[in-house]
Amino acid sequence: MKIIGRAIRLFALSAAAIVSTTTLAAEPVAAELAQQGQDLAWWIVEDLTTEIGPRQAATEAEAAARTWAVQRLREMGFQNVREEKFKMPTWVRGEEQASLIGPFHPQKLAIAALGNSAPTGPKGIEGEVVYFASFDALQAAPDRAVKGKIVFIDHKMAPTQDGSGYGTYGRGRFTGPNVAAKKGAIAIVIRSIGTDSHRNPHTGVTNFDTGVKPIPAGALSNPDADQLVRQWTRAQAMRPASGHGDTPEALRMKLLLTPRNLGQQTSGNVIAEVPGSDPAASPIILACHLDSWDLGTGAIDDAAGCGIITAAAKYVMMAGQPRRTIRILWAGAEEVGVFGGKAYFNAYGKEKHAVAMESDFGADRVWRVDFKLPDSAKSLTDRISAAIASYGVVRGKDPAGGGADIGALVAAGVPAIDFAQDGTRYFDLHHTPDDTLDKIDPVQLRQNVMVWTTALAILADSSDTELP
Amino acid sequence: MKIIGRAIRLFALSAAAIVSTTTLAAEPVAAELAQQGQDLAWWIVEDLTTEIGPRQAATEAEAAARTWAVQRLREMGFQNVREEKFKMPTWVRGEEQASLIGPFHPQKLAIAALGNSAPTGPKGIEGEVVYFASFDALQAAPDRAVKGKIVFIDHKMAPTQDGSGYGTYGRGRFTGPNVAAKKGAIAIVIRSIGTDSHRNPHTGVTNFDTGVKPIPAGALSNPDADQLVRQWTRAQAMRPASGHGDTPEALRMKLLLTPRNLGQQTSGNVIAEVPGSDPAASPIILACHLDSWDLGTGAIDDAAGCGIITAAAKYVMMAGQPRRTIRILWAGAEEVGVFGGKAYFNAYGKEKHAVAMESDFGADRVWRVDFKLPDSAKSLTDRISAAIASYGVVRGKDPAGGGADIGALVAAGVPAIDFAQDGTRYFDLHHTPDDTLDKIDPVQLRQNVMVWTTALAILADSSDTELP
Repeated sequence: MKIIGRAIRLFALSAAAIVSTTTLAAEPVAAELAQQGQDLAWWIVEDLTTEIGPRQAATEAEAAARTWAVQRLREMGFQNVREEKFKMPTWVRGEEQASLIGPFHPQKLAIAALGNSAPTGPKGIEGEVVYFASFDALQAAPDRAVKGKIVFIDHKMAPTQDGSGYGTYGRGRFTGPNVAAKKGAIAIVIRSIGTDSHRNPHTGVTNFDTGVKPIPAGALSNPDADQLVRQWTRAQAMRPASGHGDTPEALRMKLLLTPRNLGQQTSGNVIAEVPGSDPAASPIILACHLDSWDLGTGAIDDAAGCGIITAAAKYVMMAGQPRRTIRILWAGAEEVGVFGGKAYFNAYGKEKHAVAMESDFGADRVWRVDFKLPDSAKSLTDRISAAIASYGVVRGKDPAGGGADIGALVAAGVPAIDFAQDGTRYFDLHHTPDDTLDKIDPVQLRQNVMVWTTALAILADSSDTELP
Repeated sequence: MKIIGRAIRLFALSAAAIVSTTTLAAEPVAAELAQQGQDLAWWIVEDLTTEIGPRQAATEAEAAARTWAVQRLREMGFQNVREEKFKMPTWVRGEEQASLIGPFHPQKLAIAALGNSAPTGPKGIEGEVVYFASFDALQAAPDRAVKGKIVFIDHKMAPTQDGSGYGTYGRGRFTGPNVAAKKGAIAIVIRSIGTDSHRNPHTGVTNFDTGVKPIPAGALSNPDADQLVRQWTRAQAMRPASGHGDTPEALRMKLLLTPRNLGQQTSGNVIAEVPGSDPAASPIILACHLDSWDLGTGAIDDAAGCGIITAAAKYVMMAGQPRRTIRILWAGAEEVGVFGGKAYFNAYGKEKHAVAMESDFGADRVWRVDFKLPDSAKSLTDRISAAIASYGVVRGKDPAGGGADIGALVAAGVPAIDFAQDGTRYFDLHHTPDDTLDKIDPVQLRQNVMVWTTALAILADSSDTELP
């Protein structure tokens, strides 16, 4: 077991030794260090998840993570390392219990409140469960089918390599509670937006429209959602065989959620730079987020992203001073509304950026690259695509979308590159207690770093005719 | 989704129809029914885990399961269906929380109390963690290394097909708390006796010797144990570099466990029979256990076993009356001390039994058969081995051990057969919240039923010269 703080310091020394005695391009430096087992990205992830662990936005744990981050980034030799704080509304989890209480023997369910859920009050609430096969089915339902009941949204998410199911299935979480509240539901529980079969619910933020009174909202783990569906199906089948009336035995749930809104609290970004040799050249911005959901230790979401972008920047730094400044953004408060990304845009959005890139989709390998660069950068895109092809990365046909924390920059016209990671098992872990270090495959994490380092070295020396 | 209560009733009708129009040996009946999708074992498991769910020994849930069991067994056409109650000391879980509180940022750990754990009191306790790489290391330690501290036992269990690691690794749970208590520890937490990497701790019973004052005892999930080990390693590395003294920064834990002893409560066995045609022939006893740990719904442990033995007995019943009576025992209170098995032995141990068999190792396929039969049964063992070879079952060389609930019978000389199930993933789920229906592979469950039905049909018509 390696000791990370010490390891990073040793690493800084040995890296300096390499640079002082040889002249290496960035890519071979990364390859050489990886071969030596000096996995800076792994060290960062292990260090952050071990010493700080969960670090929910605008809590004391996220503040501890920023202090840790500033210290470590300085130790690694980055320049202009700073915290940039901001205020934001803050919601924290309380007790959470759910049970199916009839018509069968009472059973506990594994539940996690969604971010911005209302509390049930300390005594909890009870109600009849009304089943919807999907978010669309809930939207189509008349208010009378929902009023006074506890809504359940089913609709199991299937894994995809590009994570494209998140948009479709995620609506149950993103806006399901808002729709249920508007129709008069007393609470909502959803099948987790996740692809695993463990009793670990997937949390995540939900939002209520202005003027809509929030209701208690939680996610059941997939096995618990399965159990609810089986009981609901049996309860439906117990309706009178005579066919008179429409009075099935009701499936009833008891729910206790005691989250609290703490009002405006302090979060912040951590920013660090590798200063470029040409002060007139616009910087490259690399982003990840430092905050995590509270249930796990935020290893894949998003300590891994911070490890990847930081290792790439460090390796390029070690290869010699780049022409462009490389700026890394460890954003605060991404999970609960991209507050850090917005704060960065408010502070720096009017400055020119050469290109923006973000790593926030786990630690599995990069399998595709997508570009959204000016026409002038055709040769650049070809050079990058060719250089990373040997790592198994294919060139995609879609325009790069950027990522949450650089979303405002990209919307404002900053060029972007996406290094798309394999998301097949990402939603097994996303926002669950199971997002822990043991889920990271060091070999795939290293491939990410190789890809990023290779591309970053090329981008950092790109000309002003290629990029803004 | 099938409605089980109704399905079993339909099943009873259609099975009668099959028997009345054809003359089938038991094995083809099972094959035919399985082909028709009439998976009685699956139905039993789904029904029990859905309508009752967790059913800890001597609780109201286990009583509800007995009521359910008696009704279902009668519906299936078994005879002499009865509850046989007994009293037993009963321990139930309370709140459970654990945190690492220093020298790093405080972090919560996923913990489950072990059965018979002492409570910490409502305010919890704090203490320094003392690390042991294994149960053997704890045993070898001097009292002064342990006194006043919270013991942690590491020693990660590796999966094996035959489950043979349970004995070795399980000692940390079975007797680790007793050893730690005798050495003066204030509490003990162990790495879960489990082979998965999810944040679901593995509970299970522990026992303290008479005269030893119980201490709080819990199991951490494997990822949480990993985290503790990482923090402990870092804390050790923080000892003064001067080498003066032996004063590492202490890794400290806070622990809150509030289990209760409820004194003598009521548990019970459920027994049912397929009466044989020869009243003088000794019966065959098939066992499983009805109780489960409280964290999951007891699908693999041991609803599956009850499904397997009951389906086999039912299919043999459908093929025509057997010569020997088949008695099935759904034992109560196995998990917490085999109280049901002992109660059965006290009631019936003096009667002659032809052979005893138990299914209590999940729902994955039978891969080996072991016998402990009299020499007179050589032809019988050959016939059984040959008949089940086509299901992929090899003949083992070890004598059959029986199982927990038939352990006393086998120790008293009753012949036994073990249908050894594939345990490779059994300890991923064993005694965790994750022991739920979705973990059962219906194809492998069906193979179990085929093997048991085939063997049982042969055994049920065996002669008095072959078996006692």
